Amino acid sequence: MSRVIGIDPGSQRTGVGIIDVAADGALRHVFHAAINVTAEASFPARLKRIFDELCAIMATYAPEACAVERVFMARNPDSALKLGQARGAAICAVASQGVSMHEYAATEVKQSVVGSGRADKSQVQHMVGALLQLPGPLQADAADALAIAITHAHAGSSMLRLGIPRTAWRRRR
Amino acid sequence: MSRVIGIDPGSQRTGVGIIDVAADGALRHVFHAAINVTAEASFPARLKRIFDELCAIMATYAPEACAVERVFMARNPDSALKLGQARGAAICAVASQGVSMHEYAATEVKQSVVGSGRADKSQVQHMVGALLQLPGPLQADAADALAIAITHAHAGSSMLRLGIPRTAWRRRR
Repeated sequence: MSRVIGIDPGSQRTGVGIIDVAADGALRHVFHAAINVTAEASFPARLKRIFDELCAIMATYAPEACAVERVFMARNPDSALKLGQARGAAICAVASQGVSMHEYAATEVKQSVVGSGRADKSQVQHMVGALLQLPGPLQADAADALAIAITHAHAGSSMLRLGIPRTAWRRRR
Repeated sequence: MSRVIGIDPGSQRTGVGIIDVAADGALRHVFHAAINVTAEASFPARLKRIFDELCAIMATYAPEACAVERVFMARNPDSALKLGQARGAAICAVASQGVSMHEYAATEVKQSVVGSGRADKSQVQHMVGALLQLPGPLQADAADALAIAITHAHAGSSMLRLGIPRTAWRRRR
């Protein structure tokens, strides 16, 4: 069994999702949350809150690995700077807790969770709920964080390491 | 007397400069360094090193205030993301140490240190050395960090608060 934390950093809301991965590949939902920092009085206080909350969550749940989305190409310099700052705070927290970090492209997350790199956000959210057998709809950032954690779980499976497509792997189980 | 830390975050080198500001406005050099993280094995390790070193420096020198350069407009999304991540790690460290943060535009730094918002980097570095009576040339990132600290010291002077231009203020002293 291994425990994975997925993090979806953002300057306003940072999604967090934690899952357990059994030796046979079975996934179990452990925790999810969206850290909303919009009420903080200052920009440094927002980053500190992201850092502190992530440290507290990792201290509580002790994940072995962390997965975050790789930023392929930011839309514009201003949003890239804001995302970068939130990402810096989050990754600092991960490194300070001694948790290894892994990055996955958005298309890898979609491929892994839905089976198509072109899936839209609502499909990803729906499949996260289905794969983890969660009742009701998930907050969007928390769903994205769980999706990244699931992607890491799938990437670590020996079937994927052997280069066998995930669709085939699912049929064989 | 108040103590100010200036930080110039970067994904490869982060400049740090600390000065003391006497009640009469006199400046004294306390410390400067450039944290070079290019030898770290991974990107999270780089951010952790920035965070850890800044925390250690602030724990040692106990500054009351921190000054960083405001990012006016990043050149491109990729460099903005990298700068943002380093900035996020640095600002997390500042906030975690309970130090107040202040931002100044590059033109304010040039105006404050050289007396012209159009000064070039070498002029800023030369004037930092002259104002703090430092022998020999300074490493560029450390000089930028000291320049930002000096800008905060000047901004805090009552003369500037009254709106009297710095050029006039310097002649009156």
